[in-house]
Amino acid sequence: MSKRKAIGVDLGGTNLRVALISEEGEILQKIKEPSSGDIMSSLKAAVERLISDDVVGIGIGVAGIIDRENQGVITSPNLPSISGKSFRELGFKLPLVVENDASAAAFGERWMGTGKDFKNFVLMTLGTGIGGGIVYKGELLGVAAEVGHMSIVDNGEKCPCGNYGCLELYAAARAMVGTVTKALEGGADSMLRECCKGNIYKITPEDIYEAAFEGDNLAREVLKDAGKYLGVGIANLINIMSPEAVILTGGLIGAWDIYVEEAIREASRRTFKGLFEGVKIVPSSLGDDAGILGAAALVLHEKNPAV
Amino acid sequence: MSKRKAIGVDLGGTNLRVALISEEGEILQKIKEPSSGDIMSSLKAAVERLISDDVVGIGIGVAGIIDRENQGVITSPNLPSISGKSFRELGFKLPLVVENDASAAAFGERWMGTGKDFKNFVLMTLGTGIGGGIVYKGELLGVAAEVGHMSIVDNGEKCPCGNYGCLELYAAARAMVGTVTKALEGGADSMLRECCKGNIYKITPEDIYEAAFEGDNLAREVLKDAGKYLGVGIANLINIMSPEAVILTGGLIGAWDIYVEEAIREASRRTFKGLFEGVKIVPSSLGDDAGILGAAALVLHEKNPAV
Repeated sequence: MSKRKAIGVDLGGTNLRVALISEEGEILQKIKEPSSGDIMSSLKAAVERLISDDVVGIGIGVAGIIDRENQGVITSPNLPSISGKSFRELGFKLPLVVENDASAAAFGERWMGTGKDFKNFVLMTLGTGIGGGIVYKGELLGVAAEVGHMSIVDNGEKCPCGNYGCLELYAAARAMVGTVTKALEGGADSMLRECCKGNIYKITPEDIYEAAFEGDNLAREVLKDAGKYLGVGIANLINIMSPEAVILTGGLIGAWDIYVEEAIREASRRTFKGLFEGVKIVPSSLGDDAGILGAAALVLHEKNPAV
Repeated sequence: MSKRKAIGVDLGGTNLRVALISEEGEILQKIKEPSSGDIMSSLKAAVERLISDDVVGIGIGVAGIIDRENQGVITSPNLPSISGKSFRELGFKLPLVVENDASAAAFGERWMGTGKDFKNFVLMTLGTGIGGGIVYKGELLGVAAEVGHMSIVDNGEKCPCGNYGCLELYAAARAMVGTVTKALEGGADSMLRECCKGNIYKITPEDIYEAAFEGDNLAREVLKDAGKYLGVGIANLINIMSPEAVILTGGLIGAWDIYVEEAIREASRRTFKGLFEGVKIVPSSLGDDAGILGAAALVLHEKNPAV
């Protein structure tokens, strides 16, 4: 009897990842390319390169609000070319499961990562924006989990999603870079001025942590400020979902000691009495592979990969 | 064979309701008294008055953060005398299920009310504060669902729960009454000045809607302002839980046409594109009976009363 395998796809705002994954969660082959150009064609070509007779289905995690029933995308602000499309048009004659990318990552963590130890957790992806996934009693909740688009600032800035004062406008990478650039334009003193050959418009989040870890005040303040807002978001999620864990993933966890530690402090101050003690705030162990693994798990293990 | 019945208890901040309820959801007998004094003794006495041989268990919905495993209360800001206690000390030799009061109400709506039509919904109780319950795939999520303690105002007021800028500080009855009183103290022109024999410190939320429906500007503004904040909270919940419905209950839905309509307008402006169209925002059909029915349903039907 041949071993069951699945194709796991992670179609985020920046990269397309496609992998062949075994029933035991081993990544057998992996393709990574930028998610630009004709995404549907790139996706089809990548899947075709990896497909084999023992593949029992294709799981696709995709950034945006997805339509589980029609295996498509309702709206994807970061990938506008696929808004309104169904992955059925790829024409594969295999079962197809479509899920939000952060939710797929949550399910991947549940299967093979930090989430193995928790039946109830919220995963937050911390990058340019903030995404989310919720696991309850071991199973992935099929909900939007757009935790980065929870409004936390009264009369806040307008977000491209349509809301105002969204968490990700204050707590994610775009916000950090924006604040640093503005401060430097305003003449702030910081070692970041010397970075990127003096082109302050090329500063990345990584440049900011590095400067912060070297003691740069501006960089530290910006990370702490973003961390405070992240803490508000985490407290709100704990007050609503009372999880056993909040699992954090994405590039920004590189700044854990400043940014996330500040978030944990803020969340502990704000969370409903009696709930904070029960929650662990921990990093993901799978990193960028969580999405492809989770997408494949949705095909191979359907509901609860750990049962 | 005798018909199975259950005792349903709703122990909110203001009232204790205890009822004998049939397997079909009929309320056979009901006791209502203020939830003050020695609550545990009052509860025990009321249950003893209603108990009979065909009662198979006792379901208790209680305001606060509850401890499902130990059938007790971790913390209850509105009922401090029962914080840390377990209902096991009542000494009943019957199965006991303890749930948060708003979550019990959500399950009641799912069983016998507006929630019969929806498998995925969020219930919000709109009164002095704001509580919540979440039903997913027909089942009650055993989570805190403290939706009133979601922070939505940056640098907002401190809430007795420990958080700052909580939704209920801006969108619920205490906020409305506080704003009206302050405005009247400041000399605002309003027919509410004549209410309660001129004692502005006795104005109730009902007085505010009545004045609003009679065209009083201050009352209308206060209700609309609270409604806007409620809309922010509803939008956040839709962005996270993508429910089919948001069911609203509690005294404040008496002001639906001004307060809730404003909330719906605000939520429609803010909710993630593609999600708002799928959501109905509707009133509860059970009112104050939702809690006792839901508590009984947790005993009689365990998971999904509509299956």
